[in-house]
Amino acid sequence: MPRQPIVTLITDFDTADHFVGTMKGVILNINPDVEIVDICHEVASYDIFDAAFTLAQSYRFFPPETIHLVVVDPGVGTARRPLLARTMAHKFVAPDNGVLSLIYEREENVEVRHITSDHYFLNPVSNTFQGRDIFAPVAGWLSKWVEVDKFGDLVTDYTKFTSPKPKRVSDNLIKGVILKVDKFGNIITNLTPEDLPQLFSENPPPFKIIINQQEITRLNLAYSMGKPSEIFAIVGSSGYIEICTNRGSAAKTLNVNRGVEVGVMLGSPSPVVPEST
Amino acid sequence: MPRQPIVTLITDFDTADHFVGTMKGVILNINPDVEIVDICHEVASYDIFDAAFTLAQSYRFFPPETIHLVVVDPGVGTARRPLLARTMAHKFVAPDNGVLSLIYEREENVEVRHITSDHYFLNPVSNTFQGRDIFAPVAGWLSKWVEVDKFGDLVTDYTKFTSPKPKRVSDNLIKGVILKVDKFGNIITNLTPEDLPQLFSENPPPFKIIINQQEITRLNLAYSMGKPSEIFAIVGSSGYIEICTNRGSAAKTLNVNRGVEVGVMLGSPSPVVPEST
Amino acid sequence: MPRQPIVTLITDFDTADHFVGTMKGVILNINPDVEIVDICHEVASYDIFDAAFTLAQSYRFFPPETIHLVVVDPGVGTARRPLLARTMAHKFVAPDNGVLSLIYEREENVEVRHITSDHYFLNPVSNTFQGRDIFAPVAGWLSKWVEVDKFGDLVTDYTKFTSPKPKRVSDNLIKGVILKVDKFGNIITNLTPEDLPQLFSENPPPFKIIINQQEITRLNLAYSMGKPSEIFAIVGSSGYIEICTNRGSAAKTLNVNRGVEVGVMLGSPSPVVPEST
Repeated sequence: MPRQPIVTLITDFDTADHFVGTMKGVILNINPDVEIVDICHEVASYDIFDAAFTLAQSYRFFPPETIHLVVVDPGVGTARRPLLARTMAHKFVAPDNGVLSLIYEREENVEVRHITSDHYFLNPVSNTFQGRDIFAPVAGWLSKWVEVDKFGDLVTDYTKFTSPKPKRVSDNLIKGVILKVDKFGNIITNLTPEDLPQLFSENPPPFKIIINQQEITRLNLAYSMGKPSEIFAIVGSSGYIEICTNRGSAAKTLNVNRGVEVGVMLGSPSPVVPEST
Repeated sequence: MPRQPIVTLITDFDTADHFVGTMKGVILNINPDVEIVDICHEVASYDIFDAAFTLAQSYRFFPPETIHLVVVDPGVGTARRPLLARTMAHKFVAPDNGVLSLIYEREENVEVRHITSDHYFLNPVSNTFQGRDIFAPVAGWLSKWVEVDKFGDLVTDYTKFTSPKPKRVSDNLIKGVILKVDKFGNIITNLTPEDLPQLFSENPPPFKIIINQQEITRLNLAYSMGKPSEIFAIVGSSGYIEICTNRGSAAKTLNVNRGVEVGVMLGSPSPVVPEST
Repeated sequence: MPRQPIVTLITDFDTADHFVGTMKGVILNINPDVEIVDICHEVASYDIFDAAFTLAQSYRFFPPETIHLVVVDPGVGTARRPLLARTMAHKFVAPDNGVLSLIYEREENVEVRHITSDHYFLNPVSNTFQGRDIFAPVAGWLSKWVEVDKFGDLVTDYTKFTSPKPKRVSDNLIKGVILKVDKFGNIITNLTPEDLPQLFSENPPPFKIIINQQEITRLNLAYSMGKPSEIFAIVGSSGYIEICTNRGSAAKTLNVNRGVEVGVMLGSPSPVVPEST
């Protein structure tokens, strides 16, 4: 309760309109002492997975009791419910469209409520901008430490998708998928070092990562270790294996985007296994 | 006077240069306790109406005593005056080029002053970045609760444009215009439900909205009620009638932009009027 | 020490990913009372000079004791050192890649330290996002007024480039270079009025500025004094001579970008010198 409350924002509103500023006005009108932090307003339009991914990469770095507001809401104006979720450390306000799925997946004991207390909303509520009329005011009131149970009852039937998991096709072959291409053109896969422990062992076998019929055979420790125009793998800052190139866009070079399959073959094609060091 | 003062920013500076950050530095150097809120920095370059529209959509959602700084200023360095306007609830700092026109139009008792007290400016004042040298410092001093009459005398001959009004051509035909295309490609017209009360009556007549020789005949309550690729009308969050499509850009589909005419024909071409429900 | 501490951010991270938001979370998690100000996140990717230039234009407008965080870091994950620099008025946290060169050039008595106290870092430190793992937490702790000497020892062998200086080819000819093209398409050169005092004298000679084989022969006091489509020179807000056009992009018209040479010929081609007024 003591310090300045924090509200973060993730939307697909972009920054060329007044939308984000107006939401901030609504929050500040309720609680002028709140600190509002933009996480990202350039989530791909209507893209629930992209918003969920952006939230999942960032939320845990914020202080306890931070309120995370996620407004990617293609169903605005329909019966889709506004939700308030709470974990041990954080609160989340979002439409019930799956955008909190990775929170449900990563956190234990997530308490989810259907926000029904419409006296916390702006009046009237529009059918087209409920980020302003419902979600922002709820975040504003939450930042004044209104108890979560004042906003509505617990629900368990909220919308939830499962994030795509790597598939082990054989002992030597595992298949994953591209989760995101970042600003630099780095390709973030859903594969982690845990999926490929051999690669990170003392005696890693040769390997091939296959994306869009192209083969990557090198694993580097830092972006700048790549030779000019070389495409290589790296363990990225979110814990996923990324495909990248030094000072360039791997996604453009490989001509791929989210959803494209990524295969990893171990010990092949070369039968030579390096000697123990 | 008690709480943290708020300064909002609307500019056409974009965010790829240091301009916005530098203005924030100037404000914080005068008053480190101010809360600065970006409304929009992607106003179309030199576009006074676009800035006025962005301000008009957002300002009233901010708390009383908010200071709104609008720097879209193609006449920077000329004799155009810097203005300080005050309504019952808000303060506005902007060049005298019409950018506050929609405030003058919507608010009663707007007090407008020509800012002449140059001891509040940075010294020297450049001819090319008065957002930094004049407008930001004035906002900074205002946020320290310097009285408005310290900045200059009242004026009444400020620049003001009239926003485009719908024209009733006949009982069945009203003509409006596109005010803005938003990030999603939604087309915001200057028509409101008040201009077309029949459409929102219990027994709405058939209607045609004509834009760029294409006809829209459907009014929906929410974006997501649109069928795939259908173009329809909706009452948008600013109270204007918008033309849109579900998860797509109506502006691209219709190939239109700001300033294009929008016609609405009522009761035509079909003579059939739906039965009362 | 008394007031709210300020941390500014300059990065090439863009705003389409979670990177900037995550860094803010890290800072706020250490010090929830800090004010974080975005200067620019659209520095050209990996472009150390562009970051240095953005910082040089903006830092001095911020209050004393502001902490400036610059993360343009193509060498992330390698042995390049994290630095903490301090001038009389400001603190700077950045990788040791030259990004602080214009600070070293403009400020006297810059104290530079190699940040080695890794108990201030996140743990573990990734090889790909040290903005999050090293630079943001150091800024967070600095904002809590941890003394600079706690972070590491002084160094003098830091990376430093010299900004490009105009060259006097002859009495009548001086050659400079384009430092930056801003959002409006204004061309910022490295020439200042001090380099061309004749042009700003009471009796300025005729002159030609030559860029990409095109000649500019007019100097204006304000952008809007330019006639339609005329290209002219102006003294810009950073003190550099800029080439611009009224409400348009001079850079597009002249088809130039950073690094292109700019020649200024004085008293030529016309031998006529204007009479003293």
